[in-house]
Amino acid sequence: MTLLVKGGTVIGPTGSQKADVLVQGEKIVALLDPLFSATIAPDEVIDATGKYVIPGGIDAHTHMELPFGGTAASDTFDTGTRAAAWGGTTTIIDFAVQKTGDVVQDGLAAWHAKAEGNCHVDYAFHMILGGVDGDSLKAMDSLVRDEGITSFKLFMAYPGVFYSDDGQILRAMQTARENGAMIMMHAENGIAIDVLVQQALARGESDPIYHGITRPPALETEATSRAIALAEVAKDCPLYIVHLSASGALEAVAQARDAGRNVFAETCPQYLYLTLEDQLGAPGFEGAKWVCSTPLRSKHESHAKDLWKGLRSNDLAIVSTDHCPFCMKDQKELGRGDFSKIPNGIGGVEHRVDLIYQGVVDGQLSLERWVETIATTPARMFGLYPQKGIVAPGSDADLVVYDPNGTTRIGVETHHMNMDYSAYEGVEIQGRVGTVISRGEVIVADGNYHGRKGRGRYLKRGLSSYLV
Amino acid sequence: MTLLVKGGTVIGPTGSQKADVLVQGEKIVALLDPLFSATIAPDEVIDATGKYVIPGGIDAHTHMELPFGGTAASDTFDTGTRAAAWGGTTTIIDFAVQKTGDVVQDGLAAWHAKAEGNCHVDYAFHMILGGVDGDSLKAMDSLVRDEGITSFKLFMAYPGVFYSDDGQILRAMQTARENGAMIMMHAENGIAIDVLVQQALARGESDPIYHGITRPPALETEATSRAIALAEVAKDCPLYIVHLSASGALEAVAQARDAGRNVFAETCPQYLYLTLEDQLGAPGFEGAKWVCSTPLRSKHESHAKDLWKGLRSNDLAIVSTDHCPFCMKDQKELGRGDFSKIPNGIGGVEHRVDLIYQGVVDGQLSLERWVETIATTPARMFGLYPQKGIVAPGSDADLVVYDPNGTTRIGVETHHMNMDYSAYEGVEIQGRVGTVISRGEVIVADGNYHGRKGRGRYLKRGLSSYLV
Amino acid sequence: MTLLVKGGTVIGPTGSQKADVLVQGEKIVALLDPLFSATIAPDEVIDATGKYVIPGGIDAHTHMELPFGGTAASDTFDTGTRAAAWGGTTTIIDFAVQKTGDVVQDGLAAWHAKAEGNCHVDYAFHMILGGVDGDSLKAMDSLVRDEGITSFKLFMAYPGVFYSDDGQILRAMQTARENGAMIMMHAENGIAIDVLVQQALARGESDPIYHGITRPPALETEATSRAIALAEVAKDCPLYIVHLSASGALEAVAQARDAGRNVFAETCPQYLYLTLEDQLGAPGFEGAKWVCSTPLRSKHESHAKDLWKGLRSNDLAIVSTDHCPFCMKDQKELGRGDFSKIPNGIGGVEHRVDLIYQGVVDGQLSLERWVETIATTPARMFGLYPQKGIVAPGSDADLVVYDPNGTTRIGVETHHMNMDYSAYEGVEIQGRVGTVISRGEVIVADGNYHGRKGRGRYLKRGLSSYLV
Amino acid sequence: MTLLVKGGTVIGPTGSQKADVLVQGEKIVALLDPLFSATIAPDEVIDATGKYVIPGGIDAHTHMELPFGGTAASDTFDTGTRAAAWGGTTTIIDFAVQKTGDVVQDGLAAWHAKAEGNCHVDYAFHMILGGVDGDSLKAMDSLVRDEGITSFKLFMAYPGVFYSDDGQILRAMQTARENGAMIMMHAENGIAIDVLVQQALARGESDPIYHGITRPPALETEATSRAIALAEVAKDCPLYIVHLSASGALEAVAQARDAGRNVFAETCPQYLYLTLEDQLGAPGFEGAKWVCSTPLRSKHESHAKDLWKGLRSNDLAIVSTDHCPFCMKDQKELGRGDFSKIPNGIGGVEHRVDLIYQGVVDGQLSLERWVETIATTPARMFGLYPQKGIVAPGSDADLVVYDPNGTTRIGVETHHMNMDYSAYEGVEIQGRVGTVISRGEVIVADGNYHGRKGRGRYLKRGLSSYLV
Repeated sequence: MTLLVKGGTVIGPTGSQKADVLVQGEKIVALLDPLFSATIAPDEVIDATGKYVIPGGIDAHTHMELPFGGTAASDTFDTGTRAAAWGGTTTIIDFAVQKTGDVVQDGLAAWHAKAEGNCHVDYAFHMILGGVDGDSLKAMDSLVRDEGITSFKLFMAYPGVFYSDDGQILRAMQTARENGAMIMMHAENGIAIDVLVQQALARGESDPIYHGITRPPALETEATSRAIALAEVAKDCPLYIVHLSASGALEAVAQARDAGRNVFAETCPQYLYLTLEDQLGAPGFEGAKWVCSTPLRSKHESHAKDLWKGLRSNDLAIVSTDHCPFCMKDQKELGRGDFSKIPNGIGGVEHRVDLIYQGVVDGQLSLERWVETIATTPARMFGLYPQKGIVAPGSDADLVVYDPNGTTRIGVETHHMNMDYSAYEGVEIQGRVGTVISRGEVIVADGNYHGRKGRGRYLKRGLSSYLV
Repeated sequence: MTLLVKGGTVIGPTGSQKADVLVQGEKIVALLDPLFSATIAPDEVIDATGKYVIPGGIDAHTHMELPFGGTAASDTFDTGTRAAAWGGTTTIIDFAVQKTGDVVQDGLAAWHAKAEGNCHVDYAFHMILGGVDGDSLKAMDSLVRDEGITSFKLFMAYPGVFYSDDGQILRAMQTARENGAMIMMHAENGIAIDVLVQQALARGESDPIYHGITRPPALETEATSRAIALAEVAKDCPLYIVHLSASGALEAVAQARDAGRNVFAETCPQYLYLTLEDQLGAPGFEGAKWVCSTPLRSKHESHAKDLWKGLRSNDLAIVSTDHCPFCMKDQKELGRGDFSKIPNGIGGVEHRVDLIYQGVVDGQLSLERWVETIATTPARMFGLYPQKGIVAPGSDADLVVYDPNGTTRIGVETHHMNMDYSAYEGVEIQGRVGTVISRGEVIVADGNYHGRKGRGRYLKRGLSSYLV
Repeated sequence: MTLLVKGGTVIGPTGSQKADVLVQGEKIVALLDPLFSATIAPDEVIDATGKYVIPGGIDAHTHMELPFGGTAASDTFDTGTRAAAWGGTTTIIDFAVQKTGDVVQDGLAAWHAKAEGNCHVDYAFHMILGGVDGDSLKAMDSLVRDEGITSFKLFMAYPGVFYSDDGQILRAMQTARENGAMIMMHAENGIAIDVLVQQALARGESDPIYHGITRPPALETEATSRAIALAEVAKDCPLYIVHLSASGALEAVAQARDAGRNVFAETCPQYLYLTLEDQLGAPGFEGAKWVCSTPLRSKHESHAKDLWKGLRSNDLAIVSTDHCPFCMKDQKELGRGDFSKIPNGIGGVEHRVDLIYQGVVDGQLSLERWVETIATTPARMFGLYPQKGIVAPGSDADLVVYDPNGTTRIGVETHHMNMDYSAYEGVEIQGRVGTVISRGEVIVADGNYHGRKGRGRYLKRGLSSYLV
Repeated sequence: MTLLVKGGTVIGPTGSQKADVLVQGEKIVALLDPLFSATIAPDEVIDATGKYVIPGGIDAHTHMELPFGGTAASDTFDTGTRAAAWGGTTTIIDFAVQKTGDVVQDGLAAWHAKAEGNCHVDYAFHMILGGVDGDSLKAMDSLVRDEGITSFKLFMAYPGVFYSDDGQILRAMQTARENGAMIMMHAENGIAIDVLVQQALARGESDPIYHGITRPPALETEATSRAIALAEVAKDCPLYIVHLSASGALEAVAQARDAGRNVFAETCPQYLYLTLEDQLGAPGFEGAKWVCSTPLRSKHESHAKDLWKGLRSNDLAIVSTDHCPFCMKDQKELGRGDFSKIPNGIGGVEHRVDLIYQGVVDGQLSLERWVETIATTPARMFGLYPQKGIVAPGSDADLVVYDPNGTTRIGVETHHMNMDYSAYEGVEIQGRVGTVISRGEVIVADGNYHGRKGRGRYLKRGLSSYLV
């Protein structure tokens, strides 16, 4: 069976070209000049005239069903990957978790069990190490070698939960330096933050906004700088800062990159659009909707502007969502009267492709950087390229036909994530995900869903392409 | 007529893939998965098995037949573009010159006259402005609008020759900011350098090495910083620093880029491989071979190492050659006994693709960055993309089949440039340019030349792709 | 004749101590513990109980009678030094001027002629070099050796008037490096500024505020960085940036100082208190009162705050006034309808000691830094220490008894400068200059003036104390 | 009884002047111009002709009798302060210790018990907090208020011994910010260092040099930056980095100071003169003599050169010794075969004044900076000014007559510290401590010792002078 996506403008990471895309089975088999493609007789044709054809989005940071604070993220691999598909994301990289005290391989097995047979799009795993010790260091080697897991996330935040101390971090980095894996870092000084949290609560400052106030930018900047320094001691271990939100942290990353270091970072749509004052500081308990860590930053500082700048300059390489949804009811509400008990997380896996496209419309990014930050770079960064992330012969036929003349209105009524609110309620995007193709199969078209649970496959990943 | 380049690995700016390239006439019409391409019956096949297929090189900085210091660069558009072709470069961007006091359009016409009917590969022009005034500012607009010339070079060096003062620079930058053109800058403080030169000569320091000693890195760094500052005053006019050679200048560029500024830079192979002491300081008058500006830098400082780092981090976007050859006999010899009279320039248009590939072999660059710095980025930077710089359907069929198992020995006996010495004599490259295709025509194959003078066409360029 | 200043707190550059100061003739002969001084029987006693005793102020930057723009600064050496004395400044360093084309020594002689017999307090000269050439370089040596002139001011601004190009600057710096002199720099890119000025006037932007708008901070920062770079090429020639007003320029100075460079800077009270919007932008032609170069900076940026910080951190070493008064009538008015014709300058020699003391009251500076920035550091910087700038035995008895409980209201009605307006009209200082002693002679006491024209002596200066 | 120190040149922090110093009892009562002092008839005269008269040295960092690694520093308050006196240091600030789990006040009492009745010169205490908790935070307030202890040292190194985590540090900093105290920081990332130490030992790398190799500069730089960040979160709590030895740490301090932050640092003579390779890497176990933390740094990097630069620029404010001597026999030998068991410390309290004077001879520092870094600034930094640190009426008569024509040869045979080796064996100083006066009493003269145990007094200190 052949399928021709015809008449569109293919957007790649270096520019745009009119080209038709020929799909056979699960693969792209040819990119064709429109004139030449007239000679091809495909079984099926999708008309992409006037539209953009882009590689399917890759969300490199999701947390389906993540247990957190006595509850669990409200999207299952089923609901979450279905929402992703709706939003033009055809691959997610979720985080398997080793809890402190547990065996790494057991954690991985548990996550495979959750995901297997449930996903609508392809998926891969990073591994969270909640307890770096001799066994988990050995596990790192075997996961890289055998399991297609080539990135490991550590936490400088959440003491007593996922927290690693600097010695553990250093050891994991040394191991990664040897086996080629990427260390991903939640860079916030959790030890100092916990002091601020306790002090705030003791003063009766319990509203959601204090979640942000007790996690000041200086403590993200500090931890980012520290992670970079530890990676230097580990002989320039590859380091990837997750959900970077503070200008100072971006500056630290930029300096490391100027120095030629293997240091990378992502940001998330929430830090580009939402703020401490307007969302987290919403009246009453409303702000709980936007409790996430790192937190939303102040609109009186230049964070959001700087993050867009970082996306342009490639000091920020990737936009992920850190999708970790919790409903207000029964979940966020656990923290009523004590912000420190509000489950941390925002859902957004469905909206990333749209929200960053809006940056193109707003003059913040070029079309190329849109595609690069949401698809090509995630694939290259995390060892999925060229299977994913590019419209090229030999690559998986993961394609999105994106309509620059459509519009998308985001809201709880229309979204497909399992959340009882939307973090972006009412936001309007001047563009629209049209057809979504995953490994040659049309799963979204004309506003209808044609995918199904279980069709998504686990992807073993290789090493990052960014290391010389 | 169709031609299939078959069995190779296509290297693009984001990665590598096995793919066959179908050419029809002058264009690439399809990129094909190898399995699928079996269904195609081309008129001709080039076997690229075991080889790399890359877009034809683009040398964004050459000076064919440039009058300088009472002589002229020894390569004509004929000999120079032929040598380029031999070396896998299928496009050059040369510099038309407005001398001080002349009319810009006349300078352009003169260069068209030199090039037309003489080039073996496609060519475009930047325009050197030797006298910024009201007329030349108006000419900038018309060249951008009508002539496909979208970049203008100014000199902070060479007082009395090409030199522009800061007021002229500022005015040209303001005009460029309006019409979208790129300002290219030779960034050395020529006024201060002339003092050092006169002082050195007065002390009897006349050997070639004093050419380098009187142009210290601090004066390149200063001028680079100043150009960046003036571009800021011109409301972030796009700025491109040519032949960057000093670590400090790179640092200034990196900082501007971190700040989100439209600042770009190129370096040249000579700064990556050759040094003040070993080449410019060769015994007797030998060093004259390597007199160029900016000069070769000291091996006791970290310049070369930093430049490779800059190429990795994209603070250096492009490798050009600044090809400006002079023979020792009758030309370089004009400066015997007075280094300031040695014509400034090194020839290298033939070796750039090889020399930067050697960086891949040496672990300095990835294959992708090789292709990006020698082809894709020059095309995007100077408005030739996607016609040039990428292997994609719809693009010109400018292709190089590069053999990673071949070797190339550089030397005056074998090179094709009109020079009586080689700046890289005896250097051995662990790779080799195989077949070279220019707009669908095989011009180099099996060590034979099949091109011809006059087949190269003038390219009107658009604006840079790098400006949001 | 002995005089005892008794009961006060002597403020020195490192702290405060209750001590009595014994003066004999023109000199301080002893600093005495109050208990011990009971054993001394002086001829005269000044009661300083409850007051500060500080070294007489040194204003290292004044322009009495400076010809500028077809007129001349309105204070003569007579009126200007009398006003200085009223304000607690007992030494000025004025600028003798070599105009372009003139002989340096003639310029110096002319300034001696203006000053001699007219000054109320001691005075010294810096030399402005308006035309660096072989003769003036030789003159630098002889002025250092024979004339007690050890600092030379160059201009990167005012093309066609005082402007030196980068080659002239470099040569003067090389000479200074040899003979130990200090190069003082007016650091603004005058060539670029002139373009902005002409463009503004062409657009009909003629009000005083455009004087500031056409001299943007970026062009002060650029020139400051360039001066620092040229001084580096001159093997770390001592460099002193005058009237620094822009945050970016301060940053450049701070970086050079971090790198251990002989780089110093002053700021002036106008940049600490007055702004582009509130003063230079005053309605109608009112803003002309505050036309000076470098210009007042925007209150919407952090310049003033940063300058206070620089004074604390010693990146700004000195507060001078750049006293260069012009009356509104007949002088400032020359620029009605064309801001570029307004004579550049603000008068303030009388208020510096007070205005910076107000910084102490406001918590910006310590008492020690007050004394250091207005007296001790100027003396050390410009070769007058320990004769001036410190309350110590052997030093000249230049003393100010300052009353922290007094108040001073600044205004045209009460000031003693020859100006028909005050730049600080209505400003109230929470402190007051009490008694002023110059070389042992009480010249101001109880609001009465006891000095006289001609008592001030010319001071030959040594080299700066700040060079190791 | 009056004593006149006559004929010398008094060196103060801003310059030198011929002056005679009159002492009455324990105090300086007058500074006299030499001519004037002829009128004084003192009981006793010390001839300082041709010599420098400086304030007695203040060593702000000593550890007499410090228990460490199963032994204790070999100098008691008796032997150590006697050696200090021999070397021209008339005040020490030692560290009282709260061990983890102990009561702060008990630790202080223990140190008073050790020192009282045993000191030859005046002494004060900083307090080491080995266990920050609610009680010790309260103790900070009471020590500042009642005990004259206004500085508290924390350790980012030595986990399990003195180590404070970032939360403890933050809380102590917040308390200091409130009560005005200075936080002193041992800034090395001890958690990461311990990993490197264990790995080195596991590889059999047990020689003393591995002490230095396992404490890389990057981990001092990281910790310094982190301390600065935490102090920022504590609303710019005053921070003083002890024994700074790495260029990167200096850069972090310089940047904080440029930003106007209350950040200060000291270095020690060992980092200015001794190196990782030449001393710590001495053959066999010899290197144990120089095991101290932070460690000696590599001579192949620019640390020592940068530290001298920092002393010139005041980014390094103070030279202390971190005097913590251990004999080779029975003490250093504890670490034979395991560098991690070598007691950390170098003795040098006797040589600081000489070693830094040698910097003056070598052209590294001015005479003024010598006096400032060894006496005036320590006094101002730690609340002893003007009682100590300056030659001024009212100050304690702590004076050193220093002979620039003498020489001093350092060695175990001649030193007075209780050490069986000298860290500076054979070093020759081109200067010599002559007479030493402590509170008006001559304790060293003509190579003889006239002091005695118990004459030294405890000094209650005030807050730092450096905070506006």
